Amino acid sequence: MIERIAILGTGLLGTSVGLALRASGFGGSIVGWNRTQAQGEVALAMGALHSIVSDALQAARESQVVVLAVPIHSTLDYMEQLSKVLGPEHLVTDVGSTKAQITAAATQLFNTPERAGFLPGHPMAGKERGGAALGDAKLFRGAVWLFTDDPGWKRSEESAALANGWREWVVAMGSRTIDLDPVRHDELVAWVSHLPQFVATALSALLQEEVGDAPELKDVGGRGLREMTRLGASPFSMWRDIAHTNTEAVQAALMALEQRLAHIRENLKTPELRDEFEKANRFRRE
Amino acid sequence: MIERIAILGTGLLGTSVGLALRASGFGGSIVGWNRTQAQGEVALAMGALHSIVSDALQAARESQVVVLAVPIHSTLDYMEQLSKVLGPEHLVTDVGSTKAQITAAATQLFNTPERAGFLPGHPMAGKERGGAALGDAKLFRGAVWLFTDDPGWKRSEESAALANGWREWVVAMGSRTIDLDPVRHDELVAWVSHLPQFVATALSALLQEEVGDAPELKDVGGRGLREMTRLGASPFSMWRDIAHTNTEAVQAALMALEQRLAHIRENLKTPELRDEFEKANRFRRE
Repeated sequence: MIERIAILGTGLLGTSVGLALRASGFGGSIVGWNRTQAQGEVALAMGALHSIVSDALQAARESQVVVLAVPIHSTLDYMEQLSKVLGPEHLVTDVGSTKAQITAAATQLFNTPERAGFLPGHPMAGKERGGAALGDAKLFRGAVWLFTDDPGWKRSEESAALANGWREWVVAMGSRTIDLDPVRHDELVAWVSHLPQFVATALSALLQEEVGDAPELKDVGGRGLREMTRLGASPFSMWRDIAHTNTEAVQAALMALEQRLAHIRENLKTPELRDEFEKANRFRRE
Repeated sequence: MIERIAILGTGLLGTSVGLALRASGFGGSIVGWNRTQAQGEVALAMGALHSIVSDALQAARESQVVVLAVPIHSTLDYMEQLSKVLGPEHLVTDVGSTKAQITAAATQLFNTPERAGFLPGHPMAGKERGGAALGDAKLFRGAVWLFTDDPGWKRSEESAALANGWREWVVAMGSRTIDLDPVRHDELVAWVSHLPQFVATALSALLQEEVGDAPELKDVGGRGLREMTRLGASPFSMWRDIAHTNTEAVQAALMALEQRLAHIRENLKTPELRDEFEKANRFRRE
């Protein structure tokens, strides 16, 4: 039923969506747009798109489903622009890592019977580096794809059908879908995604200062060190908007971890240390 | 030249040493001893040993090289006992994760021309769970095996030759050897090994409290979360002695990370965050 998709933003996620759709049997057309044309051409050459266009809004108008795969602040900007040119025969969805602001904008700008539909989405998949060239048809296999749909929205029949259709393609791409309240979403990902990232960044930056001048000694840490710092390679450009749009939840998670580390530091020789290890063991067992 | 080895402690590391020696062509005899006999029998059944014995000190006396693969406090106890029953025709070595206390004991109890030799060693290899059953002939391949030999020690000719022979077997097992000052060793592993472990423990314990009641949502974190918490499965029994014998260096590392996390928390919306990401990126690049 979905036959015409526009992907706005052909970085790692946008390119992977195109590749995964086609690998899952999507037979319709996929047009792509990217702020810098070179990334769009890489995505085209990789087979993620049928064509690239220079006018994002026109491409959106000519499609049924528009996938926003740009940074969060750009997503918010495009929502504003798209809401003015699209109608009830369209569905917009996104892949942004925080959902409270985007879902609030969706309530304001979309999801009435007269307007286009907007389905806020967040695939929990990625790589520590971005870019079209790393696009991967298998990126979403086995991943969780979160949605923060609001049951109170009144979409047009057509955009509601497109939203169901998009959910089916997400499953076809290999993901399991979970629906969450947007505020709960942002709190949850602060714990299980953003906190691990900022910890890896802090640990990597600290070790760069402490042992960065002894590169052969990095090998000493072995697999554990490599795993604990892999996310340290993540670029700031991917995380700036997350830090800006989920600030309070991330601050609370960081503060809680600081206190936990201080507790361990003060109890290296007391039985409290055993309790911490046992609690950690439970997390990995359950 | 080394023909008779005794492995005292047949947990993960002791069993792996036996398996790796034999896989690397060691043709002599390997006897094993373990505090609980069941672990010794597992190691024997896996082919890590030729026989198990019930008297550790007698086994040591009848061997040329004694490998201590027990927790650090037990290593210190055995060093005391072994120093009384062994002579210049013996070499003792160990696999303990901290080296300052063990190397100081080696100066006091070993390494004169009339006494047995002691070569303090630390293979940077392991698994997040212990036990003979996880023993692995390939555990030391591609790993770094640290030594904290003191150039001032005057070993007997025989024990010096055994120490060189042991280093050759370490290389045969697939490890690269690095020599370090013992205090520098403990500082370095505090950064690259102990800090990552305690961070993983703190993060896992915190997440157990925060999201432990929503087990399906652990999947949401994906590969990053799995990697950042894998070491959370490490048992307290493996880490207690490390916390006890490298307390100050670990405290300093934990404190430094707490400050780093606080810095990030206070700068989620300032340009300082970019600096942290760039420093972290450098650690992974270099």
